[in-house]
Amino acid sequence: MNATGLTIGVFDSGFGGLTVLRELLPLAAGSHCVYLGDTARLPYGSKSRETIVRYALSSARFLQQRGAELLVVACNTATALALDDLREALTIPVVGVIQPGVEAASAACREQGTAGEVLVLATQATIESHAYARACAKLGLKAIEKACPLLVPLVEEGWIGEEAPGEKMPGRIASAGDAARASVTAQVLRIYLGEALQEAPASRALLLGCTHYPLLRQAIERTLVELGRPLRVIDSAQATARAVERVLSEQGMGHAGRSDAGDATCEFFATDSVQKFERLGPRFLGRPVGKVQLVDLGG
Amino acid sequence: MNATGLTIGVFDSGFGGLTVLRELLPLAAGSHCVYLGDTARLPYGSKSRETIVRYALSSARFLQQRGAELLVVACNTATALALDDLREALTIPVVGVIQPGVEAASAACREQGTAGEVLVLATQATIESHAYARACAKLGLKAIEKACPLLVPLVEEGWIGEEAPGEKMPGRIASAGDAARASVTAQVLRIYLGEALQEAPASRALLLGCTHYPLLRQAIERTLVELGRPLRVIDSAQATARAVERVLSEQGMGHAGRSDAGDATCEFFATDSVQKFERLGPRFLGRPVGKVQLVDLGG
Repeated sequence: MNATGLTIGVFDSGFGGLTVLRELLPLAAGSHCVYLGDTARLPYGSKSRETIVRYALSSARFLQQRGAELLVVACNTATALALDDLREALTIPVVGVIQPGVEAASAACREQGTAGEVLVLATQATIESHAYARACAKLGLKAIEKACPLLVPLVEEGWIGEEAPGEKMPGRIASAGDAARASVTAQVLRIYLGEALQEAPASRALLLGCTHYPLLRQAIERTLVELGRPLRVIDSAQATARAVERVLSEQGMGHAGRSDAGDATCEFFATDSVQKFERLGPRFLGRPVGKVQLVDLGG
Repeated sequence: MNATGLTIGVFDSGFGGLTVLRELLPLAAGSHCVYLGDTARLPYGSKSRETIVRYALSSARFLQQRGAELLVVACNTATALALDDLREALTIPVVGVIQPGVEAASAACREQGTAGEVLVLATQATIESHAYARACAKLGLKAIEKACPLLVPLVEEGWIGEEAPGEKMPGRIASAGDAARASVTAQVLRIYLGEALQEAPASRALLLGCTHYPLLRQAIERTLVELGRPLRVIDSAQATARAVERVLSEQGMGHAGRSDAGDATCEFFATDSVQKFERLGPRFLGRPVGKVQLVDLGG
């Protein structure tokens, strides 16, 4: 595909990690990105640590076989529970989504000159792992962690109004039904954020700790304003993409900014439900995903 | 456990099938029920047919090893996609959830003297399989199928108000937050049912084609009244329990109604997430589930 460039492996339990790839592509000119969604075994969130480590290792090995020279774990659950095991087992650099997000939140707190408290929204499994709280504590930040389990299904069903880039596709017309659906999501956000803000009186930054949540960023920002607490929203997908760029540059692997590097190329694999990936992928990636190839990792 | 009685195996991808077991227990006096929730590999709904057949077979074999002499497939997706394979592979009687529900809906239509049209609510995977439409067609019924993907997460999160029997537990007090949560579910039901009823002008019966939906029965009935279309709601969990009772009786295996048979006993297995099973199980079973044993089926 791209004989001279670097191959970057990106993996997630599903297609949520495409929000990370989306941010990465403009920063990884000249590279070839191989994305694997382990859709046969999702959601990782309800599985045990042992199971998640096993799944993450088999996904990572597949990407290495496809030539990956750097691995992005674009999945909060896998980062929370399997990052150390992946780094131990693999010889290539491994970047997770948690540390970059927490560093960005820490920088946002410093910029605002506020007490070091950040509100983290994530899935039940990520919250229960307390991976964000631990990463925050190392930077002197207090994390207020809030599980928001209904947000992933709402995003996957597309009940997110008109904001998602993938929705602004030709032929897509807003209807009264769309508005009713988006109002359900707004009501759910009012409940989650209303509760979370009470627990986080000193927070001035909110960290999106799930790869699905960037699609709700505008709805979350609107709800924060409505509730009188316009926290700065930090997108860990963006932060992770910048962390990958730094690793590439540190290791002399970076092509970013080179005018002759050309656009990054992509190919997509899924362990099941290829059709759902092809249907929902564009909503997360912000552009067509084309053909998704089915791969069997066992299990 | 129960040396003289029959052992009944009940399996589902998760704990939703406990609504079937709940209806079955009063009809299966003297029996021992072994329930397996294949929580490591849920949701089946997003998996391919081949994968679901493989999962269902390994779950069924585990239950046979535990002594099951009759198998209840208390999972709509597994019934839709794997019932024939299970019947072919196993030597014990196998009862699924679809046929009993459809027969009950057909009887309800006849009782009401109406045209044979029934509205079926189910998950995306069940609807896409058109298993209900096929089963209905065989009885001369037209099925209007409506996928309601958000209902399972809403039930699992307990956003269902005060109606669920498992919620009426000591120390459980309704709060303003509970009311706000239940109103989200009501709004979602208005959207799904509003759309579905437009497509089903002649329907006088509504079939709950997912094992989670009995927990929403009252909310669904309220919404139908609100929308001016008070359809008769058919619970396939109840219909399946009666079908099991019939099979037991036909095969001379029935103890039901025998005053000396004693209460049915239960044991519970899950392939992962035992804690979640123990926490949510009582909401579905309507009584405590006690200790859930972890079992590894591979994969």
